[in-house]
Amino acid sequence: MVTKKTEKKIPSDIEIAQEAMMQPIGEIAARLGLEEEDLELFGKYKAKISSAVWDRIQSRPDGRLILVTAISPTPAGEGKSTVTVGLGQGLNRIGKKAAVALREPSLGPSMGIKGGAAGGGYSQVLPMEEINLHFTGDFHAITSAHNAISAVIDNHLHQGNSLGIDPRRILWKRVLDLNDRALRHIVVGLGGKAHGMPREDGFDITVASELMAILCLARDLEDLKERISRILVAYRWDGSPVTVADLGVQGAAALLLKDAIRPNLVQTLENTPAFVHGGPFANIAHGCNSLVATRHALKLSEYTVTEAGFGADLGAEKFLHIKSRIGDLQPDVAVIVATVRALKMHGGMAKKDLQTPNLAALRQGLPNLERHLETMRNFGLAHVVAINRFPTDTEEELELIRQWCEERGVPVSLTEVWEHGGAGGEDLAKKVVQLAESGTSHLQFQYDLDQPIRTKIAAIARQVYGAEGVEYSPQAEKQMEEIEANGWEQLPICMAKTQYSLSDDPALLGRPEHFTLHVRELRPSVGAGFLVALTGNMLTMPGLPKQPAALGMDVDAAGRVSGLF
Amino acid sequence: MVTKKTEKKIPSDIEIAQEAMMQPIGEIAARLGLEEEDLELFGKYKAKISSAVWDRIQSRPDGRLILVTAISPTPAGEGKSTVTVGLGQGLNRIGKKAAVALREPSLGPSMGIKGGAAGGGYSQVLPMEEINLHFTGDFHAITSAHNAISAVIDNHLHQGNSLGIDPRRILWKRVLDLNDRALRHIVVGLGGKAHGMPREDGFDITVASELMAILCLARDLEDLKERISRILVAYRWDGSPVTVADLGVQGAAALLLKDAIRPNLVQTLENTPAFVHGGPFANIAHGCNSLVATRHALKLSEYTVTEAGFGADLGAEKFLHIKSRIGDLQPDVAVIVATVRALKMHGGMAKKDLQTPNLAALRQGLPNLERHLETMRNFGLAHVVAINRFPTDTEEELELIRQWCEERGVPVSLTEVWEHGGAGGEDLAKKVVQLAESGTSHLQFQYDLDQPIRTKIAAIARQVYGAEGVEYSPQAEKQMEEIEANGWEQLPICMAKTQYSLSDDPALLGRPEHFTLHVRELRPSVGAGFLVALTGNMLTMPGLPKQPAALGMDVDAAGRVSGLF
Repeated sequence: MVTKKTEKKIPSDIEIAQEAMMQPIGEIAARLGLEEEDLELFGKYKAKISSAVWDRIQSRPDGRLILVTAISPTPAGEGKSTVTVGLGQGLNRIGKKAAVALREPSLGPSMGIKGGAAGGGYSQVLPMEEINLHFTGDFHAITSAHNAISAVIDNHLHQGNSLGIDPRRILWKRVLDLNDRALRHIVVGLGGKAHGMPREDGFDITVASELMAILCLARDLEDLKERISRILVAYRWDGSPVTVADLGVQGAAALLLKDAIRPNLVQTLENTPAFVHGGPFANIAHGCNSLVATRHALKLSEYTVTEAGFGADLGAEKFLHIKSRIGDLQPDVAVIVATVRALKMHGGMAKKDLQTPNLAALRQGLPNLERHLETMRNFGLAHVVAINRFPTDTEEELELIRQWCEERGVPVSLTEVWEHGGAGGEDLAKKVVQLAESGTSHLQFQYDLDQPIRTKIAAIARQVYGAEGVEYSPQAEKQMEEIEANGWEQLPICMAKTQYSLSDDPALLGRPEHFTLHVRELRPSVGAGFLVALTGNMLTMPGLPKQPAALGMDVDAAGRVSGLF
Repeated sequence: MVTKKTEKKIPSDIEIAQEAMMQPIGEIAARLGLEEEDLELFGKYKAKISSAVWDRIQSRPDGRLILVTAISPTPAGEGKSTVTVGLGQGLNRIGKKAAVALREPSLGPSMGIKGGAAGGGYSQVLPMEEINLHFTGDFHAITSAHNAISAVIDNHLHQGNSLGIDPRRILWKRVLDLNDRALRHIVVGLGGKAHGMPREDGFDITVASELMAILCLARDLEDLKERISRILVAYRWDGSPVTVADLGVQGAAALLLKDAIRPNLVQTLENTPAFVHGGPFANIAHGCNSLVATRHALKLSEYTVTEAGFGADLGAEKFLHIKSRIGDLQPDVAVIVATVRALKMHGGMAKKDLQTPNLAALRQGLPNLERHLETMRNFGLAHVVAINRFPTDTEEELELIRQWCEERGVPVSLTEVWEHGGAGGEDLAKKVVQLAESGTSHLQFQYDLDQPIRTKIAAIARQVYGAEGVEYSPQAEKQMEEIEANGWEQLPICMAKTQYSLSDDPALLGRPEHFTLHVRELRPSVGAGFLVALTGNMLTMPGLPKQPAALGMDVDAAGRVSGLF
C-alpha cells in the first residue's frame, strides 16, 4: 500500500480493494479484545458479533464518539464515508485505538448510478465487493420480514378482514433492495376471487422500510420486537389504528431479524476495525448506522468514528435528536466535511464547472459552511472542519477556506485520506483528539419531546435550517390532529427535506434566508419512534438511469468481480 | 440421542433439533477429507465449499448415487427427505462413508402451512432453524438477481425501448420468497410518466424462478452465466425472442449469484455430512438440489443419498431425464418411499380416515406403487421399496405391503428413521448397498433429445404415467411451432403436472388407466435448458392459509426460536 500512495495515478476503488492485504477477521476482532468465539464468521473477512459479548461489555465506560457530518452536499456527495474511514485510520496511526461505524450500502443504488458506499481510494472498508453486494444478508432479512408483514395484511383482507382494515388506508407498502421505478405505483390483488383483494399499493426500496429504522434504533432483540409490534400499518374503517401486534406477526418478523440485529465487523484498508451495520434512508428515516453497532464500538475502542447521512442539517440533526436521545450517546467532536467543489456550487457555479478554480464563487459559498457550524455550536458540540481534498482543488482555494476558518477560530484540517489513507488523516486525527480531550462538548437538544409537534418542528426549522417560519398543508394539519388523538405527539421529529439546500427548495443554495419551511405531510413511524415531517416529494423507490451501472458489472469464471465501484 | 429414542413420546422436530449435539462444521468437512480452509464459514455449523476444492477433486471417481423417490404423495408428503436423511445416517452406521444431498427449503411455505423441509424426527438436517430461515442467503441472492433483471426490463421500456420489446409479451415476472397471493396478478408502472410504463405483471415465489433452475443445473460459474445469458425474457413486436444477453444484465446477475452457486455443507442429527443446496419447484422446474452439490458429494463420499421432488412420475423422471442427462449422473439404486396412509388414500379412503386400519383400501392402493416400480424398471434402475413407518400403521398393514413386494421379487424395507434415526434405516441401508454393489443399474432414457417434442412428451406420458395418448391445446400447438421456429426443440421436457395423480387429474388416484394427458401450454426455459409442458393450472405463487404458521412463530429476548416446524 505504501508504495502505491506515491504513484501519480490512483487506481480505481475496486482495484485498490482487490489488491489490499486483509487480515483474518479474528485478528481484527482481537484488536477490540474479542476472541474467535465471540464471532459468527461469514467467510474469512466478515463476522457478526455474538450476543454474549454485550452482556460482558455493557458495564464498561464508553470511549470517545466522533460524529462525521458535512455541509450541504453536491449530488455526488462530499466523501463523508471516506473521511470517516480515513479518520479512523489516522487515529490508529497516532496511537489511539479507534474503530469506525458506518452504514451498510444498499444494493439498489449500486446497480444504478451511485456506486457502492464503502468509502473510497485508500480509505475504504473491505471486503468492498461483498459489502456492496449481499454482505451478511441484513438487508435481505429486512426485505423478507417487511414483505412477510405485507403478505399477512393482504391475507387478512382476503380471509375476511376481521380487523376491519380500510384497504384505502394501508400505510405499509412492500419493499425490494433495488432501484425499480415501475414498482412505485402498482395495483395488487387482480385476477379474481382466488387472488386477493384488489387495491393500490407500491414498493419502496428496502432502506426506506420502517423495519430498517427500527433495526438501527433498537437496543436489543426484545426492544426490536416491541418496536415492530407498535408499527402502524393501516387504519380501520372507523379510523382507529392497526398495528403489527393487531396482526400478530411481530414474532415472525423479529425471528427473521434475529441475526440481522447483530452488528457486523469488517476492516478498513489499514486494518482498522469497522462496524458496518444498518442503513436507513436519511430523509424519511434518520440515516445513521445501527445503535447496536455504535454502542459495541464505544465499549470496545477508545475512539469511535461514525457518520450521519447528507449534511449536518439532516444527518447530524437526526443523529443528535433521535439516535443520541434514544441511545444516550454523547458525541465528543463533530467533524464537518467540506469540499472546494461543493462550496463553489453553493457560491453559484454550475455543476459542470466545479473543476475550474474560482475563488469568488468559493467565498460566496462559505456561508453554507457557516450555517452548519452555527448548528454544531447550538448543539453544544466541539467541532472541526475537514476539507476533503480533491485533485482539482488549487492551493489558493484550500488556503481561502483555511483562512476563513481561522478567522472564526474554527479548527480546520486538510485531509487527504482518499489519496493517502490514514496518513492523510493524521492531522485531522490530532485535532479531533485535542478537541475530544478538552471535554467541551455538552449535547443540547434543540427541542424537548414533551413540546407540541409545531414547536419541535419550528425549533429545527429556525435553529438548524435558519428558516423564518413553518407552514403546514391542510393534509399535514389533519395528520397532526390524528397523531395527537392517538397519543403519538411525544415522539421526536424526523425531517424529510432535500439534502441540497438548507431550505426545502433544492435550488436555494448557499445560506438561504427569509424562507418558510413547508410541511406537506406528517407520517407517524410509531415503531421506529419518530414522526416524519415531509417537506417535499420524497422518492422512496429510486429509478435506474438510461445506462445502469448493472450493465457494466461482471464476474469471470474464476469469480473475479468487475464493474463495482 | 440414544436414550431419547427409547422414550415413548417423540418430541417435536424443533425440540429435537434444539437439543442436538452438533459438531463444528470443520469436523463434518473433515469426514469428507476437507480442511478448514476449504470452507467459507457461515457461523459455526454452516459453510460453503470453496471453489478451489472442485479443481482438486474433479478427476476422482464418483461414489455410489442413491436416488430417493416416492409413490404419488398425499398433500402432507410421504417423508422422502426424512428417509433420505435416515438412509444417509443408516449407511454411516453400517460403515459406509455417506453424505446426503437435499434441497434448501423455501421460506414462503414455512410461513404458510407446510412447515420447513429439513427432514423430521430423528432424521433431520441441522441447524434446522437457520436452514428453514435465511440459511446462507442463496434464495435471497436469487431473488435479488431475478428482480434486477426485471428492473432492467422495465427500465428499458421506460428509457425508450430500443429493443422493441412487446410489453404484452414479457415472460419474466418478478419473485419473492413468500406466499403472497395478492402479488400473483398486478399492474405495474402506474402513477404517470416518471414512474415507468404501465403493464400487467406478477410475482412468482423465488423457487419458481428460472434462475433457481439454472443455479441447480449449472456446472460452474461460467456455465451459470451462459445459461443466464440465454434466458428468454420477452418477445419483440416482430415476434423475435429477447434474451438476458440482449439486455446485457447477465454479468450483474451472475455476480449476484457467485456465492450462491457454491454448495452448502451442514450435518444431520447424527453428524452425517449434508449438502443442502438449491431448491427449484418440482412442477415448472425439475425439483432436485443443485448439480454442483451432488457432484461434490459424489467425489467426497462413498455413498450420496439424494432426493427428487413429489412422486417418481415427476421428481425421479426429471432427475433422470434432465439433471442426470446434463450432469452425466448414473444412479445406482432408486429408493421408492411408500406409506400405508398414502396407499390407503390411493385405495379410495378419504384423507380424514387415513389413520384407521383398512387392509382392503391398502390392497386397492398398491397399483400406484406398482406403476412407479415399472417406471424404475423402464429406466433400468435397481430399486427398493422403503415403507416409511407412521405411528398409526398396524402390523397387518405393514405385512401386507411386505408380502406384496416379495411376491413380485421387489426388495422392501420397513424404515423407522423418524423415530429411531439412522438405526431405523440400517436395514434399508444394507439392501441399498447390496443393490448398488450388484451393479445392475444401467440408466435408459425414455426419449432422446433429437426426437420431436411430441415424441418426447408421449414417451413420458405412456412409459411413466401410463397414459394412452396426449392432446394439445391450440395454444400449446402454437407455442410448439414457435419453439421449433426458434430452434429450441432439442431441449428435454420438464412436465408440470399434479403430483397427486399419475394422470393430469388430481382426483384420479391409484393407477389410472385409459386416460389422455392434456398439454395446455408449452413454455421454453431456454436458460435452464428445458421445455416446460403444463398440463394444468400450476400455481407459481402460493397463498397463505387463514391461520398462517407465521402467526405462531416467535423469538425470545435470548434468541430462542419457537413456532418453526
